[in-house]
Amino acid sequence: MSIRVGIVGYGNLGRGVEQALARQQDLHLVGIYTRRDPLDVTPASGDVHVGRVDELADEDTRAGIDVLVLCGGSRLDLPEQGPELARSYTTVDSFDTHARIPEYFAAVDAAARAGNTTAIISVGWDPGLFSLNRVYAQSVLPQGTTATFWGKGLSQGHSDAVRRVPGVAAGVQYTVPNEEAIARVRAGTGADLATRDKHTRHCYVVLADGADAEEVRSAIVTMPDYFADYDTTVTFISAEELRRDHSAMPHGGVVIHSGETSPGTVNSIEYRLTLASNPEFTASVLVAYARAAHRLSSAGEHGAKTVYDIAPGLLSPRSPEQLRAGEL
Amino acid sequence: MSIRVGIVGYGNLGRGVEQALARQQDLHLVGIYTRRDPLDVTPASGDVHVGRVDELADEDTRAGIDVLVLCGGSRLDLPEQGPELARSYTTVDSFDTHARIPEYFAAVDAAARAGNTTAIISVGWDPGLFSLNRVYAQSVLPQGTTATFWGKGLSQGHSDAVRRVPGVAAGVQYTVPNEEAIARVRAGTGADLATRDKHTRHCYVVLADGADAEEVRSAIVTMPDYFADYDTTVTFISAEELRRDHSAMPHGGVVIHSGETSPGTVNSIEYRLTLASNPEFTASVLVAYARAAHRLSSAGEHGAKTVYDIAPGLLSPRSPEQLRAGEL
Repeated sequence: MSIRVGIVGYGNLGRGVEQALARQQDLHLVGIYTRRDPLDVTPASGDVHVGRVDELADEDTRAGIDVLVLCGGSRLDLPEQGPELARSYTTVDSFDTHARIPEYFAAVDAAARAGNTTAIISVGWDPGLFSLNRVYAQSVLPQGTTATFWGKGLSQGHSDAVRRVPGVAAGVQYTVPNEEAIARVRAGTGADLATRDKHTRHCYVVLADGADAEEVRSAIVTMPDYFADYDTTVTFISAEELRRDHSAMPHGGVVIHSGETSPGTVNSIEYRLTLASNPEFTASVLVAYARAAHRLSSAGEHGAKTVYDIAPGLLSPRSPEQLRAGEL
Repeated sequence: MSIRVGIVGYGNLGRGVEQALARQQDLHLVGIYTRRDPLDVTPASGDVHVGRVDELADEDTRAGIDVLVLCGGSRLDLPEQGPELARSYTTVDSFDTHARIPEYFAAVDAAARAGNTTAIISVGWDPGLFSLNRVYAQSVLPQGTTATFWGKGLSQGHSDAVRRVPGVAAGVQYTVPNEEAIARVRAGTGADLATRDKHTRHCYVVLADGADAEEVRSAIVTMPDYFADYDTTVTFISAEELRRDHSAMPHGGVVIHSGETSPGTVNSIEYRLTLASNPEFTASVLVAYARAAHRLSSAGEHGAKTVYDIAPGLLSPRSPEQLRAGEL
């Protein structure tokens, strides 16, 4: 029987979950729940129910949904919605405020145990698949060094910082990993690299009418915290170029771990994501974990979980027998 | 309390397990068990017990070991030792005859259930970490294509084939992935590539006295099954060069999966191993799974398992709380 999934929140991530569900055979979308006016939401899949988040309190709604994928933000939405909805639904979310994961886990865990549901938190690629790869690599080669590089990717926070500079009409910022630093980490000699040594920053800026390009460039590259410590380039483009070339949301990165297995014998493990769409890929990870959440919930394994707690086979549509026969 | 580990079989893999255990803080080696005369075995760590495999039948031996790492071969040793030892010990092995995994699993599972032990089979990198990465990637991006490239690596089977050619005194063969094919798979256009399109083969040969180099080269590159379908090079070297430059056992490879998240939006996931020592790295993976096997066994989760059944956090020396606080 196909797993019935509800989406809570219909921004970039929620739309990505809708796309991802369309690519899975054993999961299907039953409803989109939003805080906006449902009439303002136009799902890609025309015939799906769109309702208000409040509807999720109804017993009938609850009976028709196996898993909710929570697509709200980590700052305002999830701290409230995560525990609240885990009381009645098996859930998956992408909570990504690293420092607050323990307290968020505790709140969701209490709710899920009380409600006999299962909640997998902090799913995505970082935290998520990158975290898993760091743990696999460090467990196998404990005497080693791990480095994570992000990009090439559009950074929302740094793009916002660029747009706040006087004279900037619009713009985006990409974080790009430094290939020399990657080579050092691969060779096991990159333990001393700081984040600023590992990445460069590239800004594409549309100037406001009458703004001075050199002043804008200088204001950006000297901005403390955001750019001053980095090798930063600023390229001026037209509004048309910005729309045409910079409206996708690519991202990705690489986790590299190098470690010795005997004196002088260095092995490296490298996990690389090249994402044409950051939100769509994150959504695809959430959907695979929604399958695992439903299986765990059905098996009576309740409470909050993270990706570390989920056996890989639970993500696959195939049975353990099929996996052993076909793949190992 | 430190986990007490026994090694069964002391070839390259068994010696690798010994090295790997020395790099883990919460596991330690208590004994090496061999079919050879124990007096012929000289452990790297001087003070460890060396005994015959028969000793493992003793109740006292059993009481002093938490996990056995089985380091025998998949063809002759494991089909017998795996089920036999799983009756009395929690075990980890690297059974890698892909086609026979279901029957091996069934035999080990019956033994482990009867003995209230836990046995993790087919651990290593392929099968093992590569299998995991194929399943993670295919679960997240189900509409995609996966390709595995092996190398640069020393192939034992192909090296043996080279050495059987008349006129060859000694030699080795490396399998090397084709970079053009890798680029096609990354871009999502490599679905039609056969193994022979994806790899080239490089032989380093020491000629026997009086042998004709051109005849030997021709016999190698035209050998059916092994070389005829591949782009193969033969380089003649001295016995001294062979010893100096080709006695390591490097290997590795890459699993690449590309898939769309919406029409035209291609994302790729790449997992790459660069191994200076194939047996030492395989041993390191076995040791991390030995930790998981002991934890599962202690928790009463008995029977045979594969890497698909093991939650990643179980491999780590850190607790779930530590993982959530530090890493996610």
